[in-house]
Amino acid sequence: MRAAFFGPEATFTDIAVQSVFPDARRIAYRTIPECLEAVKEKQVDMAVVPLENALEGSVNLTVDYLYHEDLPPIRAEIVVPIEQHFMVHPENVAEWRKTEKIVSHSHALAQCHKFLHREFKHAAVEQMGSTAAAAKYVSEHPELKWAAIANEMAAELYGLEIVKRSIHDYPFNHTRFIVLAYNKLEIQKAPSFQKSTIMITLPTDKAGSLHQVLSAFAWREINLSKLESRPLKTGLGNYFFMIDLNHSLDEKLVRFSLEEIRALGCTVKELGSYCRYMAE
Amino acid sequence: MRAAFFGPEATFTDIAVQSVFPDARRIAYRTIPECLEAVKEKQVDMAVVPLENALEGSVNLTVDYLYHEDLPPIRAEIVVPIEQHFMVHPENVAEWRKTEKIVSHSHALAQCHKFLHREFKHAAVEQMGSTAAAAKYVSEHPELKWAAIANEMAAELYGLEIVKRSIHDYPFNHTRFIVLAYNKLEIQKAPSFQKSTIMITLPTDKAGSLHQVLSAFAWREINLSKLESRPLKTGLGNYFFMIDLNHSLDEKLVRFSLEEIRALGCTVKELGSYCRYMAE
Repeated sequence: MRAAFFGPEATFTDIAVQSVFPDARRIAYRTIPECLEAVKEKQVDMAVVPLENALEGSVNLTVDYLYHEDLPPIRAEIVVPIEQHFMVHPENVAEWRKTEKIVSHSHALAQCHKFLHREFKHAAVEQMGSTAAAAKYVSEHPELKWAAIANEMAAELYGLEIVKRSIHDYPFNHTRFIVLAYNKLEIQKAPSFQKSTIMITLPTDKAGSLHQVLSAFAWREINLSKLESRPLKTGLGNYFFMIDLNHSLDEKLVRFSLEEIRALGCTVKELGSYCRYMAE
Repeated sequence: MRAAFFGPEATFTDIAVQSVFPDARRIAYRTIPECLEAVKEKQVDMAVVPLENALEGSVNLTVDYLYHEDLPPIRAEIVVPIEQHFMVHPENVAEWRKTEKIVSHSHALAQCHKFLHREFKHAAVEQMGSTAAAAKYVSEHPELKWAAIANEMAAELYGLEIVKRSIHDYPFNHTRFIVLAYNKLEIQKAPSFQKSTIMITLPTDKAGSLHQVLSAFAWREINLSKLESRPLKTGLGNYFFMIDLNHSLDEKLVRFSLEEIRALGCTVKELGSYCRYMAE
């Protein structure tokens, strides 16, 4: 099995792939769209990309791509706990408190904002494309007094020393990754529960449509675990909604509700029914 | 009147301020939080910050700040059409097609993605803090064959020549800005309509709460023009909702609905009733 993932090696996406597909041949892609195009064009068997972070919210690029493009269904969701560590080149361990510049992904820097403000008020901060890319850069430049914020796998892969563990500000940080594939996937790990994702566009000329949609779910006791709006790119105030259901799309009551919602004039895109897996 | 705005001069926020408050003393702030702190601490009479772009979606920093901090009420909303132009230093006009690097804000670069891909495939692209900052940089470096993507006001202020107008990919792009102030503001311009914004946190232990909230509005024919979710930063799946109503919070039916929604166990934060103004 060839698995495209949002790279480089040792990103959190890479951790997601390795935890659920330990035997897959992992192929790193530079961007999320390239990753999704690879599975669409059947260059790989599956693609793994980030969908939502508990602190920063949805990854808009992934959500918009799922809405606007025809992609294979979602076959699995992987939840990875996000632990950020402070790491330097082994030659600079003794002097780590004198770090002059700290590099990482913009989200990781945001997640460690309080730590940086408290401990490294006078150090410069620079964004890089990913936490793994930052770790790689620091490993290649021992002459610079720089540090990276990244995960444990990146420290191991690039031979950096973690001098301060778990420096993120909020303890409950997780990221959800989705796995897209045309064919069913064999997964050894035990799932935590089943769910589905759909995207709904409301008719523009009717007030109260969202309430009607939620009514169609509510009286059938179909539980929603997520409801999120995204702009349609057609003007202010035009949205589509991404909705997660704690049910399979094959359940009879779910099928009836979607049929009715379509009859109300809504567009419904079904992204798939799948299980959640925990990377821990 | 002193108006804090997300600067530097000639940003789209600056255009919003000048169109509705032509006589205000404008004070540029480097970041959105600094702008909001200034009005909270009464260093200025009002603060103007971006809230939502029609293509890129909400400005998460503003939304989260409104939720987590106690700020003065929203007193007005200003909608600015977003037109991006391609501009170079006057010395480089003849050779503008040989531009080697293009600089702008990340959103502006995203909004002109197709144009850049079509016309400047081989030029480098670099992000700067704002469109105005990019224009300023290009104006100070005539020796570089660089171009900026920015608005007309920035071209005038920094003495750049617009060589290609309206290069944005989608024609309907607008940004909403909000004005926060403790005191009522005198506005000469005619408003387009009145609205209100609230933020609702659902009780975590009850399914179907969002449906109940929308029911409370729906049977009273209270129209929602926006409903958006944001993560609460307490774990995956915990959200608050930002809701715009096409009504004043003083209307009797609105007051009843909010009272009932609170009785259901929801937390409701009222951000204010205000009018929309068009910058055109």
